[in-house]
Amino acid sequence: MLDRTYPTQVCSIARALEVIGERWSVLIIRDAFLGRSRFSEFQRSLGIARNVLAARLNHLVEEDVLEHADDGRYLLTRKGRELAPVMHQLMKWGDKHYAPDGPPRLTLHRGCGGDVEGDMICRRCGELVRPGQIELAPGPGLQTIVP
Amino acid sequence: MLDRTYPTQVCSIARALEVIGERWSVLIIRDAFLGRSRFSEFQRSLGIARNVLAARLNHLVEEDVLEHADDGRYLLTRKGRELAPVMHQLMKWGDKHYAPDGPPRLTLHRGCGGDVEGDMICRRCGELVRPGQIELAPGPGLQTIVP
Repeated sequence: MLDRTYPTQVCSIARALEVIGERWSVLIIRDAFLGRSRFSEFQRSLGIARNVLAARLNHLVEEDVLEHADDGRYLLTRKGRELAPVMHQLMKWGDKHYAPDGPPRLTLHRGCGGDVEGDMICRRCGELVRPGQIELAPGPGLQTIVP
Repeated sequence: MLDRTYPTQVCSIARALEVIGERWSVLIIRDAFLGRSRFSEFQRSLGIARNVLAARLNHLVEEDVLEHADDGRYLLTRKGRELAPVMHQLMKWGDKHYAPDGPPRLTLHRGCGGDVEGDMICRRCGELVRPGQIELAPGPGLQTIVP
């Protein structure tokens, strides 16, 4: 549906969306940041059909967001890891508006432990934190799901 | 397709994607940041069917991302404006990987004019820039499209 009009969209947001604009793709990338790397881990986490998952993984590999390692795992490439700020900001916006029980995951300054908000300032030490210095921890909104 | 599995996704990224995870929605929000506010402006910019555009606009109004003003315009709400960091980071990632002719749009520190990259540091004055202090300007990759 988007093919017809996308050539006229001279815009880096439009072009980025061609790669990560599909919701499953964003959730796969999220899972990769959470440490998931195996087909079965993505499938269990997302509960999607194998053929859909395979297609999205292949697309992300083609676009050099993930690499398919020799041991079968799907790992974030450097280009994929560079999506950390996008995911961080998307999560913070979701936390603010769609997490009535508090954030499901905390973003902590690695080695310091302070909360890092959307402005990337550590609430404990006051430093400007780079995306690679953030670690995730369970937050108050993370409930255990019993299938 | 996503309805079945989304309740198990206790995740602010998944929840945010329920609102802005559809590609047209993100491009509508982008257009709103670029100053477009009228139905006809969105339609001309995106080239999508009126019924699709109407449905996406209504959804964004229901979610309080846009407000439908008395004069007919669709304006970003405060919650919508809080998506600026998401759009900024998505644009910077697209600029880096999908803009061979340079960025279509520059993000400049308002009043200073320095470039602001993904780290939100102004390249001219060195200050940490807040999202509301950024203004967009045409960049080298912005070609005029002749329909």
